Amino acid sequence: MEELHSWNKCINKLELGIFPTPLYRMTNAEGFLNYKPIYIKRDDITGLGPGGNKTRSLEYILGDAVRQDSNVIIASGPLQSNLCTLAACACSKLKLNCILVHSGEKPDKFEGNLLLNKILDVDAHYIGEVSENERTKYVDELFVKLEKEGKRPYIIMNGGSTGYGALGYVNAIYEIFKQCKELGFRINEIFAPGGNGGVAAGLIYGNAILGFPFKINIISVEYDKDTLSNHIRNIIKEVEEITQIPFNYKLEESCSIIDDYSGKGWGRNTIESEQLVLDFPKMEGIFIENVYNSKALVGMFDMIRKSRVNGEVCFIHTGGFGSLFSQW
Amino acid sequence: MEELHSWNKCINKLELGIFPTPLYRMTNAEGFLNYKPIYIKRDDITGLGPGGNKTRSLEYILGDAVRQDSNVIIASGPLQSNLCTLAACACSKLKLNCILVHSGEKPDKFEGNLLLNKILDVDAHYIGEVSENERTKYVDELFVKLEKEGKRPYIIMNGGSTGYGALGYVNAIYEIFKQCKELGFRINEIFAPGGNGGVAAGLIYGNAILGFPFKINIISVEYDKDTLSNHIRNIIKEVEEITQIPFNYKLEESCSIIDDYSGKGWGRNTIESEQLVLDFPKMEGIFIENVYNSKALVGMFDMIRKSRVNGEVCFIHTGGFGSLFSQW
Repeated sequence: MEELHSWNKCINKLELGIFPTPLYRMTNAEGFLNYKPIYIKRDDITGLGPGGNKTRSLEYILGDAVRQDSNVIIASGPLQSNLCTLAACACSKLKLNCILVHSGEKPDKFEGNLLLNKILDVDAHYIGEVSENERTKYVDELFVKLEKEGKRPYIIMNGGSTGYGALGYVNAIYEIFKQCKELGFRINEIFAPGGNGGVAAGLIYGNAILGFPFKINIISVEYDKDTLSNHIRNIIKEVEEITQIPFNYKLEESCSIIDDYSGKGWGRNTIESEQLVLDFPKMEGIFIENVYNSKALVGMFDMIRKSRVNGEVCFIHTGGFGSLFSQW
Repeated sequence: MEELHSWNKCINKLELGIFPTPLYRMTNAEGFLNYKPIYIKRDDITGLGPGGNKTRSLEYILGDAVRQDSNVIIASGPLQSNLCTLAACACSKLKLNCILVHSGEKPDKFEGNLLLNKILDVDAHYIGEVSENERTKYVDELFVKLEKEGKRPYIIMNGGSTGYGALGYVNAIYEIFKQCKELGFRINEIFAPGGNGGVAAGLIYGNAILGFPFKINIISVEYDKDTLSNHIRNIIKEVEEITQIPFNYKLEESCSIIDDYSGKGWGRNTIESEQLVLDFPKMEGIFIENVYNSKALVGMFDMIRKSRVNGEVCFIHTGGFGSLFSQW
């Protein structure tokens, strides 16, 4: 606990969102699954732009950028990237220039997060349907070009799933820990979606530092278990380098990485996830999008049904509300 | 203060949102206007569906419906009505049937709030481009029809701008009052958009009960001052009937109703409001929509610039984020 505070003092953390996010019981989901208690952590309403998990990550990532005196932030991702929109919101607030590099064609109509980016009047580069490697190459070249122009660019790597980005979820797990104490809740198992592994790495690392108060379950929405595990290990290494506090545990003993619900990969719905996007809002009046939280929630619900969980369960809703408006 | 509690005990209030909503300073807007402090009350993130002010109103309106043992809720409004979407979210959560009556044609593509309604699979009646009176007539006939079928329908009148709906904002003003004490804030002037007068009536009535701690400014987005004032007076009368606590003040001495910023009426942007929808998110990373908050914020900003305010200022962001996605 003391350790968790100590690194916070050394690192430049900005205030971009409104924390703590709400934590409460989902009584309708409990009735539906005939299981209780089931909590939800509302990281979909972090108070910046359309909300979502990247707000927490950007507090540390842009904290690092500001510490380095950068003045142009480059974020990249697919057209509906939540990271890109949140980065644009955060940069506006911080009066930093922001460039978004999208692997996709410039659309005729701006929907979902792209509409929000347009409102923010952000400088967007549409580089066509290229691979992640090609997008990274474009970003690297852009970085060099900007430096030559005398600017001080900063690249948000890997959709924010970096060591600094993960610190947001180290903090989040501590926030949940404190909230449980304050509200008199007990939580045993935490579920979150796993994409590139940034949220996962933060939760797992933070949970270890706190002495493993929770069992962390990461539902992969994209990669197989080994690939996602490797991503998480690499990000945890980055966190260790930043905090100088080692993570002396085997990943497989520190959490469950579950790849049973990812279907055919990123952005490709499963029958179950498509259905839950429709069913979950009817239960709780809370919307989820199709890429991340739908699959993670399918996984949690299924594991509850199959008695693969113990005690109190909490789902971390990582947001993406803006992108929902482009998914229909 | 005691009075405010006493009526709360007599009235059936449901819990639909997450309160208190955040209240904090907008430091970038302060810099832009060279005025401070300027607070924002984030009723755009009330935690139900896309968020917004109607969450507070529905806690009382649907509380009344549940008290009357109703089992079909009828809400009506234009296609992008925030009340309709929030009512659909709330009814889903409460397991009540919900019928939405829209004055508009069924669209080919479901955008903004209509998309959210579709996800909720709500029973929507599109009755064409009719007047409010014609829509009310349709709703009344539907009510009779449902009763004949043995159902127990309940009509949400006037877009939720009713006595029960206004109670949500009586409560909100008390919430702001308490929050100021807890956070050590002092607020002198409160600004909110005025459409049909529901939010306004609640704020003005609640402020009176509390002994006028705040100066309430209502920026009309639709009606001229006299028309909006009459709407507010009528709703306050309904509140008095519910609470049995009289409002013994002249409206014009209890608040400022300002109609300088409504342009050509509801849903018709002014040059300034169109610009602020673009500029405000760049300042604070918070989005506003085109119909309500854009005009209200234009009004507040202009009055600050013209030194027509005194002391600490607070803007109540009443939401409408879902509708934004249909406005481009």
